Amino acid sequence: MNIQDIKVFVCSPGRNFVTVKVITEDGTYGLGDATVNGRELAVATYLEEHVVPCLIGRDAHSIEDIWQYLYQGVYWRRGPITMAAIAAIDMALWDIKGKVSGLPVYQLLGGKCRTGVNLYAHANGENIDDTLDKVQECIDQGFKAVRLQSAIPGLSETYGVLGDKKDYFELQGNRPLPPEQEWSTAKYFKLIPELFKKARERFGNQVHFLHDVHSRLTPIESAKLGKMLEKYNLLFLEDASIAENQENYKLIRHHTTTPLALGETYNTIWDCKDLLQNQLIDYIRVAATHAGGITGVKKISDFAAVYNVRTAPHGAPDLSPICFAAHMHLNISTHNFGIQEFVGFGNEESKTIFKHGMTLENGMVLIDDAPGLGVDFDETKASEFPYKRSYLPVSRLEDGTLWHW
Amino acid sequence: MNIQDIKVFVCSPGRNFVTVKVITEDGTYGLGDATVNGRELAVATYLEEHVVPCLIGRDAHSIEDIWQYLYQGVYWRRGPITMAAIAAIDMALWDIKGKVSGLPVYQLLGGKCRTGVNLYAHANGENIDDTLDKVQECIDQGFKAVRLQSAIPGLSETYGVLGDKKDYFELQGNRPLPPEQEWSTAKYFKLIPELFKKARERFGNQVHFLHDVHSRLTPIESAKLGKMLEKYNLLFLEDASIAENQENYKLIRHHTTTPLALGETYNTIWDCKDLLQNQLIDYIRVAATHAGGITGVKKISDFAAVYNVRTAPHGAPDLSPICFAAHMHLNISTHNFGIQEFVGFGNEESKTIFKHGMTLENGMVLIDDAPGLGVDFDETKASEFPYKRSYLPVSRLEDGTLWHW
Amino acid sequence: MNIQDIKVFVCSPGRNFVTVKVITEDGTYGLGDATVNGRELAVATYLEEHVVPCLIGRDAHSIEDIWQYLYQGVYWRRGPITMAAIAAIDMALWDIKGKVSGLPVYQLLGGKCRTGVNLYAHANGENIDDTLDKVQECIDQGFKAVRLQSAIPGLSETYGVLGDKKDYFELQGNRPLPPEQEWSTAKYFKLIPELFKKARERFGNQVHFLHDVHSRLTPIESAKLGKMLEKYNLLFLEDASIAENQENYKLIRHHTTTPLALGETYNTIWDCKDLLQNQLIDYIRVAATHAGGITGVKKISDFAAVYNVRTAPHGAPDLSPICFAAHMHLNISTHNFGIQEFVGFGNEESKTIFKHGMTLENGMVLIDDAPGLGVDFDETKASEFPYKRSYLPVSRLEDGTLWHW
Amino acid sequence: MNIQDIKVFVCSPGRNFVTVKVITEDGTYGLGDATVNGRELAVATYLEEHVVPCLIGRDAHSIEDIWQYLYQGVYWRRGPITMAAIAAIDMALWDIKGKVSGLPVYQLLGGKCRTGVNLYAHANGENIDDTLDKVQECIDQGFKAVRLQSAIPGLSETYGVLGDKKDYFELQGNRPLPPEQEWSTAKYFKLIPELFKKARERFGNQVHFLHDVHSRLTPIESAKLGKMLEKYNLLFLEDASIAENQENYKLIRHHTTTPLALGETYNTIWDCKDLLQNQLIDYIRVAATHAGGITGVKKISDFAAVYNVRTAPHGAPDLSPICFAAHMHLNISTHNFGIQEFVGFGNEESKTIFKHGMTLENGMVLIDDAPGLGVDFDETKASEFPYKRSYLPVSRLEDGTLWHW
Repeated sequence: MNIQDIKVFVCSPGRNFVTVKVITEDGTYGLGDATVNGRELAVATYLEEHVVPCLIGRDAHSIEDIWQYLYQGVYWRRGPITMAAIAAIDMALWDIKGKVSGLPVYQLLGGKCRTGVNLYAHANGENIDDTLDKVQECIDQGFKAVRLQSAIPGLSETYGVLGDKKDYFELQGNRPLPPEQEWSTAKYFKLIPELFKKARERFGNQVHFLHDVHSRLTPIESAKLGKMLEKYNLLFLEDASIAENQENYKLIRHHTTTPLALGETYNTIWDCKDLLQNQLIDYIRVAATHAGGITGVKKISDFAAVYNVRTAPHGAPDLSPICFAAHMHLNISTHNFGIQEFVGFGNEESKTIFKHGMTLENGMVLIDDAPGLGVDFDETKASEFPYKRSYLPVSRLEDGTLWHW
Repeated sequence: MNIQDIKVFVCSPGRNFVTVKVITEDGTYGLGDATVNGRELAVATYLEEHVVPCLIGRDAHSIEDIWQYLYQGVYWRRGPITMAAIAAIDMALWDIKGKVSGLPVYQLLGGKCRTGVNLYAHANGENIDDTLDKVQECIDQGFKAVRLQSAIPGLSETYGVLGDKKDYFELQGNRPLPPEQEWSTAKYFKLIPELFKKARERFGNQVHFLHDVHSRLTPIESAKLGKMLEKYNLLFLEDASIAENQENYKLIRHHTTTPLALGETYNTIWDCKDLLQNQLIDYIRVAATHAGGITGVKKISDFAAVYNVRTAPHGAPDLSPICFAAHMHLNISTHNFGIQEFVGFGNEESKTIFKHGMTLENGMVLIDDAPGLGVDFDETKASEFPYKRSYLPVSRLEDGTLWHW
Repeated sequence: MNIQDIKVFVCSPGRNFVTVKVITEDGTYGLGDATVNGRELAVATYLEEHVVPCLIGRDAHSIEDIWQYLYQGVYWRRGPITMAAIAAIDMALWDIKGKVSGLPVYQLLGGKCRTGVNLYAHANGENIDDTLDKVQECIDQGFKAVRLQSAIPGLSETYGVLGDKKDYFELQGNRPLPPEQEWSTAKYFKLIPELFKKARERFGNQVHFLHDVHSRLTPIESAKLGKMLEKYNLLFLEDASIAENQENYKLIRHHTTTPLALGETYNTIWDCKDLLQNQLIDYIRVAATHAGGITGVKKISDFAAVYNVRTAPHGAPDLSPICFAAHMHLNISTHNFGIQEFVGFGNEESKTIFKHGMTLENGMVLIDDAPGLGVDFDETKASEFPYKRSYLPVSRLEDGTLWHW
Repeated sequence: MNIQDIKVFVCSPGRNFVTVKVITEDGTYGLGDATVNGRELAVATYLEEHVVPCLIGRDAHSIEDIWQYLYQGVYWRRGPITMAAIAAIDMALWDIKGKVSGLPVYQLLGGKCRTGVNLYAHANGENIDDTLDKVQECIDQGFKAVRLQSAIPGLSETYGVLGDKKDYFELQGNRPLPPEQEWSTAKYFKLIPELFKKARERFGNQVHFLHDVHSRLTPIESAKLGKMLEKYNLLFLEDASIAENQENYKLIRHHTTTPLALGETYNTIWDCKDLLQNQLIDYIRVAATHAGGITGVKKISDFAAVYNVRTAPHGAPDLSPICFAAHMHLNISTHNFGIQEFVGFGNEESKTIFKHGMTLENGMVLIDDAPGLGVDFDETKASEFPYKRSYLPVSRLEDGTLWHW
């Protein structure tokens, strides 16, 4: 069952998505997501010029061999562009294998370990009260875990807060140049403990709380924050600090028992091996699109299990529904799955392009039994929403120093 | 002195090169190399679509800020494509700073630490005798260090051996698809100790010998090879084993005092921090184009110095003369420089495009005092040699297992 | 561009400063600061007799080679006298390189990473209220970070407290013999938490607070203090304990998340390598004059960056404006700069000798674009203020035991 | 018994010596050596201007308090200049205490642990045969341990080889500027194993052999050399590699059982604490003059004993007979003493200045029972040999890189 053609699409129904379609000689096709937010065309070119020609004629069944061919056969390994390209091919091949076998992908991965996939939702407020109102909305919708973010007084714009935008698509899909934002740990520290104090006062322990630092703290600051938040009993603190030097987390881990989650930007096991092996985190958040596809994430998940680390895949809207579906198949079949980030199934425009049978029910996503990944892609619709350059913001300290966004 | 325009060129005078030209408002320009062998267009797109628009209007003097802007400001860090794009911009900005100040770049980096740059040449033979004859040719040309590779009997093709090709350009510049080669450690182990035994018999200690394993051995095999070669007193053994798991080298290091060199595929300090910090290698071989430019390599070099590790930059023909010049400026000004790999200044076609004042003398490269990097790029000539898809080979074990090429 | 002459000046406009002037054949000159408080003439002799004769005729451009020549070429390495001598030559050579290239030194170091240099000021009071009044003065002057010290009841004299002296020049510039002061950790511990409690009550979180222990606590006492002060949220605790045995800080670090700063007496990377590598501190406070100049500090800073440690250079008035300018060039161009200690630009007498274009604005120092370091030195004026022996105090416990001052 | 006066002398009977004379109110005086080769006047000034005034009137008996006063009371600690100044005062105070008590200093240090002090002599030859002839001379003179050095073919000058100079005084005492020498590890490696092979063939095991690498090898090269020399059974390999990063010796230690000695340039326990604590060396070679005097060395020796490391004090002619006498008193009374380096009691001129009762007998030094250190200093004679600027050489690799001399 050889690969006959591979097509790469870049469409922008509010945000850009790079979609790969692998077609075999018998007409079976599989879909993969290769979206790297703000670097979409680099991945598209990587695929079209440097991957597609090398795969034509190869056996679509040989997923592992193709993965190794594209990873260790390329001499220049790792990094977001390379791994997203590999990821998209890998997802598409698993999709094909599912269709060929008449089984949903999760069955090929070992079958269901659970009935549905627990989610955490986002509550992003203009101020503490607004955030708490949004927590209530999430609870009302059935979510059992909510991530709380709130605008930081004194800073012009805060990560994750929508302001006058109706959703993340409108917030982040229309920036032809990266806006420059501001960061102050001092101002942030004034707010966050207060946010969680009031949140627990209002909601007691009826839901899990989470919070995303988005890597803006130094290790000792993260340690301090983790310690301050212990009494509010977070499910986890996300991206407490950057961890290119994985030992950073030794310091954080030493000072706090707040559970820690990390990994949405990681591309390979090598980015987190020491973190996992030394049990420095509790949840690994790698995304299928950024970490080498289903094959890449499955291996990282199995490694994490050895150290009692659970998975909590990235679920921001910079990943297309194809990636989200891949996560669902992984989540349902991975024993050490923890929780899935969730911000909806996309805006109305994107829903006309990406069709799937996943449903939201009582704070969980349920998945149907369509063969493969269970997502389809409408090429014609997609062509109505051409690529539009758009970037994530960058962040600077108040003195102008470039900082982690 | 703001950036007014940035142009990206892909030309192929036998091999593909990606060249960046940064132009300031006053017309000063700087050049950078962004070539990633077999992934050229991915970097070109990364630059054109995702870097160029974000840099127009920024101060060309702010090299460190722009480096950080493109590295940590992008959310998706690391990897060969990203780091080559940053590298090319970084080189071009140092080139501009040199021109503006009227000084060669090495003067900005602290001035000369040595009179010239020691090189090691390549002797690649069809068999042991042929290799030794080529060692003699290198000695006759004045080289004081030679890397010995020899075709491995029983394998169809061997890395680094030219066969009927006249140079590396002809060997590697014309492969529209990656050829698939074969590997057998057993066959390799039959050859290599014999090669060095005969080499020392013929040449005594008049020159330094080196050898490149090209990562094809497992750690324990590397340890064994290092031990077998101790009596032949290599200057270093290159890429003895893959080191994505940097602890691999603990095992190798434990067993042998043969000096070890590594790093031509590394993109950041994070790929080698543990190797350096634990003194597991003796030479770090990062290339300016692949590891974030002059700024990136300078920081890695200074870090390495703390641990008595010297630099030995990659010098294969997959880097353009702009990168080679950047290496020269780094080599001459970095106290812990060791030795530079050298395979000539390129073929005749490439010499019509890249003009420079570097000269070869007695096994050393000498550098002139032109301001900046001292290389110029003929755009018209370049346009006569359009991009041509070409790939490095992949390697498989005799049973078909994909292996390290 | 060879060195033709080097002059060494010791002047005392209130306090002693050792100034080096390196003059090249074409008449360009560069300035460096070699002041070691209370050891001024030892450095001056080191330079005049043992450095100057060896440098005449060498290329002023070869900064790195001269640094190594004076460091590892001397057999007897390290220590404050040696490293201050090297530092002064190094600063002068960077000054010359800047002048020759027509660029301020920060441009040679990679350009601006921020708009200005954040400072922390000193509030030294006779008692808690007096200290808090002085904090208010600092705030009124625009400072956003203030170091709080207060006289300790029951001790005859307290570090940093001016008493009836109008400034640090009058306090420390006129002591022909070292005064002997007293120390009691018990008395200190009664005061300090109270000081910060009242400070936060009065000022809330409008400014950053810092405090300098001046190495007088044992490691376990420092750990305890750090823990006691956590709730007052210091930007950092300075010199919490002596760290000749760098492992001392493991104990402190284990017990507290109060950020830690160290290093104003350090001379080389070897004095702090383990502290940095193990992330035992958050700010490294090496001074250009004491740690081998711009070349020395740049390398330490880059090393620190790998471990998420920021720089916070020493800024006491024992360093001349030449060193302070060197810090400004480093601070503005070093990505991992944190904050600069600041106690003014010197007294009126010193301002007649050292001329520069640095200005104070809204708690930041701004630097002009004069080529080189941007400081000039009036030799005639300097000669009107001859060297005057003066010493820092020593400290003893109440039973007479010699203690850390 | 207060200190009334302290005089500092710099004389040059072939080589420069800095001598300190501490005089008490009752006219008792003590002598100390403060010589730092090539930095003599810096120490002299340090003492005269910054130490002497602070000590007048203090109790000469309070050796420990004065040591701490000059070390931790000075804020700027460590380094060769500071520690040599402290050392000279310390030796002089021990000398006084001996005289006052009517006892040789070794009795104050705990009395004799052995009958005499074993020595190792130097055999420095123009070639292997010449070196071996000189070994024979040493054996004939009764030495039981000999350090072998030999000129390295192809290098212009070799460390330790006298050439046409009659002794070390003539070799190193007359260099108004540092000569620049050359280093090549490859050339050195060709010679050294051959030297020891022939030495064992000629002399069997009748004497101990030693060798001084003088820090010119990288850690892996040292490891290799140690391994190569194992079969020749050295008493120790001296200064195998630089150890500013003390972990360097982990690598060397791992690969070889050749005993290792280090420390002649060390100034404090902090320069070797990790080396000792991790048992990375076998002999610690600190000198009284460079490491804080008798007080400093005694503490380091006691610390070393905990880890089974023995002492082997530096004994080159850059230390005056006062330091050598201090070593004798330490050696005879320190239980974990190993062996003393010995190159004679100085040239004829120096013997007219420094008078003592030490004698050489059968490869050992015997010490008389004169109170104090047992050395006297003829000020008048000394004044006939004024200071003469002279420097140690520097070393460069063949490409001009500054290297360890």
